[in-house]
Amino acid sequence: MDRNGLEVLDRRECLRLLGAHTFGRVGLTTGALPTVLPVTYRMLDEHIYFRTGPGQKLTAATSNNVIAFEIDGMDRLWHCGWSVCVTGVAREVTSAIRLEELDRVGLPRWTPNDGARVVEVSIDVLSGRRLGAS
Amino acid sequence: MDRNGLEVLDRRECLRLLGAHTFGRVGLTTGALPTVLPVTYRMLDEHIYFRTGPGQKLTAATSNNVIAFEIDGMDRLWHCGWSVCVTGVAREVTSAIRLEELDRVGLPRWTPNDGARVVEVSIDVLSGRRLGAS
Repeated sequence: MDRNGLEVLDRRECLRLLGAHTFGRVGLTTGALPTVLPVTYRMLDEHIYFRTGPGQKLTAATSNNVIAFEIDGMDRLWHCGWSVCVTGVAREVTSAIRLEELDRVGLPRWTPNDGARVVEVSIDVLSGRRLGAS
Repeated sequence: MDRNGLEVLDRRECLRLLGAHTFGRVGLTTGALPTVLPVTYRMLDEHIYFRTGPGQKLTAATSNNVIAFEIDGMDRLWHCGWSVCVTGVAREVTSAIRLEELDRVGLPRWTPNDGARVVEVSIDVLSGRRLGAS
């Protein structure tokens, strides 16, 4: 339990949750201001991958910036929920081999124009919390 | 439509969505690193309110920092979804009148130890996107 009365999830459980979902949010700092953007993603070899077009996500990616990545789920009826937060370095994926691997496992596309560019985020800091029944 | 093929939501629709939900995420910069934290909240008079204890959310709040606040919803089956992102200044609420008003409308509590402290975020920048059926 943490000081807020939430169950602390271990790394194994955080990775399981990241692997079981495909919708999350990226937290960025752009022009000194924080922003949160939804993305569809896939975890592969303990890295997070998502598609992007030109714009702030890609800018962050290609600048080797540190970004946050978060997934969560909640059930209002049962008042239980969980969240997993990753901090890591974002890079554009340029390796043809890795892009092929991602094609094979299927990298979800969210917007109609989701770009051909792919961002990889290393899972450097990983933390998770759960409230209520698991 | 934006350049990613998503419907741009107007301010009125963004405010309606913010008023209709009570679970969102705060995007902060702490120690130069971005973080995303889930919160339960309520919108009142075009401001976002959430409870907090000591820690990074409160630190951001009491320092008049700019933070991001995001809500979203998606339906994988119908492949539709939406998100609303707020950028604003976070302040701790100290006015007894405002705290009473919030008690009256009911400020949801997420964690068992969610503090007596309340953070107010001004809605300075507001944007929203929707994909698929509304």
